[in-house]
Amino acid sequence: MRIVQFLQNDSRYVGLELGQDGDIVNLSSADSSMPSDTRSFLEAGPELWETAKSLSNRSDCIVKRENVKILAPITSCDKVLCIGMNYKDHCEEQNAPVPVQPVIFNKFPSCIISPYDTMTYPTETKCLDWEVEMTIVVGREAKNVKVEDAMQYVFGYTVANDISARDWQLTPGLNGGQWLIGKAMDEFCPLGPAIVTTDELGDPHNLGLRCRLNGIIKQDSNTNQLVHKTQQIISYVSRFMTLKPGDLILTGTPPGVGCFRKPPEYMKAGDVVEVEVDGIGKVVTKIA
Amino acid sequence: MRIVQFLQNDSRYVGLELGQDGDIVNLSSADSSMPSDTRSFLEAGPELWETAKSLSNRSDCIVKRENVKILAPITSCDKVLCIGMNYKDHCEEQNAPVPVQPVIFNKFPSCIISPYDTMTYPTETKCLDWEVEMTIVVGREAKNVKVEDAMQYVFGYTVANDISARDWQLTPGLNGGQWLIGKAMDEFCPLGPAIVTTDELGDPHNLGLRCRLNGIIKQDSNTNQLVHKTQQIISYVSRFMTLKPGDLILTGTPPGVGCFRKPPEYMKAGDVVEVEVDGIGKVVTKIA
Repeated sequence: MRIVQFLQNDSRYVGLELGQDGDIVNLSSADSSMPSDTRSFLEAGPELWETAKSLSNRSDCIVKRENVKILAPITSCDKVLCIGMNYKDHCEEQNAPVPVQPVIFNKFPSCIISPYDTMTYPTETKCLDWEVEMTIVVGREAKNVKVEDAMQYVFGYTVANDISARDWQLTPGLNGGQWLIGKAMDEFCPLGPAIVTTDELGDPHNLGLRCRLNGIIKQDSNTNQLVHKTQQIISYVSRFMTLKPGDLILTGTPPGVGCFRKPPEYMKAGDVVEVEVDGIGKVVTKIA
Repeated sequence: MRIVQFLQNDSRYVGLELGQDGDIVNLSSADSSMPSDTRSFLEAGPELWETAKSLSNRSDCIVKRENVKILAPITSCDKVLCIGMNYKDHCEEQNAPVPVQPVIFNKFPSCIISPYDTMTYPTETKCLDWEVEMTIVVGREAKNVKVEDAMQYVFGYTVANDISARDWQLTPGLNGGQWLIGKAMDEFCPLGPAIVTTDELGDPHNLGLRCRLNGIIKQDSNTNQLVHKTQQIISYVSRFMTLKPGDLILTGTPPGVGCFRKPPEYMKAGDVVEVEVDGIGKVVTKIA
């Protein structure tokens, strides 16, 4: 399945995307018991997911993609976790050792914006940077999960741009060295367009991913370069905190971010930034 | 008003606490249009709050405190923010300079537990510490708020124990220096018992607050010692991110935490830790 949220006549629905960038089956039209938000959809569990899957042939409930607004595929989750320095060559570009254990930080659910939204350049930073990231969507509650069991807790994957204010993240001493302000300003998590389930996606650890700024490729790598893969991340994080249905884990970004370019390069008003992961989709954000 | 959430016959309600540790008016019994959770109550806005206030004389809707389970007064908010090193003498006890600007970090909504709950000693830490904190509850959406306007955005105050795993927070290099793991393990935010509105509380910056471990006072100070007060905090945070109704801001802790004692002192299974702020209430947590 490819799960989306969308706005039709001012109401939000959960839908099945019929292929990448395809039209959408409105699940609520096909079955009135379907929730109108993805968090509730995930909390409902596998039985409901199976019912949803069976509705993909309901051609009477298809809405044309161009007639709706595609929203972020999930909002209002409990946690938006991020893994830092999780591509070997991204560590090398900043002369940092590859972390033995995942480094965990976070954004807030209210940072999430829709996959084709315009974001406003924040007044508080002069160093707005991009980061394409494959993003895990948790499917069921996970606590103290073993590596070999971890995939059972994953519902699927989506794409995020881990937008960062590098001055606030990396200036020594600023915010006591805590990255939160630099990572969690309003609109710092463009997300989407779909959540692709693990059975549909195939191997999540062999997907091309890239970031383009105004059409020029800035990041171009493959999730086979991840230091800590999904299983290790889920197992590690769940030692400390219970993962909930709908929780997001941004898995880290490959090399090519602006702040480590020579000279450094940042986004400005008028730019268009695109992040994509093969098999999942593309998130396009205009900076206003 | 003193707002609580409580469980009665397995259903959650919002209630008015009739004085500290007093009985409770079930708002839903008095007016069926009242929401059953505090976040929705806050999102509904001042008109609903006025209606709720007028229900304090509905003696027909009073439930005895001992007949219900008191829950945390809010759960499932967007953000649980914390201010670091915000008492002058807490900075001195760790030989750290007083921050010129507030240091912001966070917990997760799912860290919140009820004010009289037992928490389980986490297997991942050997350094479980206490921190009594007066906690701001945001009443309305706030972005780029001036210091002089900031109090308009505050609904009230409650009490939190900013439970911390000091090994994970403070060991150099651990989690890349990010405090998140040390601050956001499951159950690390005992909260409550009530949210006291600003009009009822009086001056929030002149309240005694203390922490007791097994009856022995460990922290004993006054919110008049805060470096950055509510107005500065709201104004500062809202430069970066939109505060939402129900967001919590733990304002920092006075001296006397375990990790800076000589020798350091941590909690262990069987301990009872109490945090209280005068005029608001007391949160009692047993460690299992």
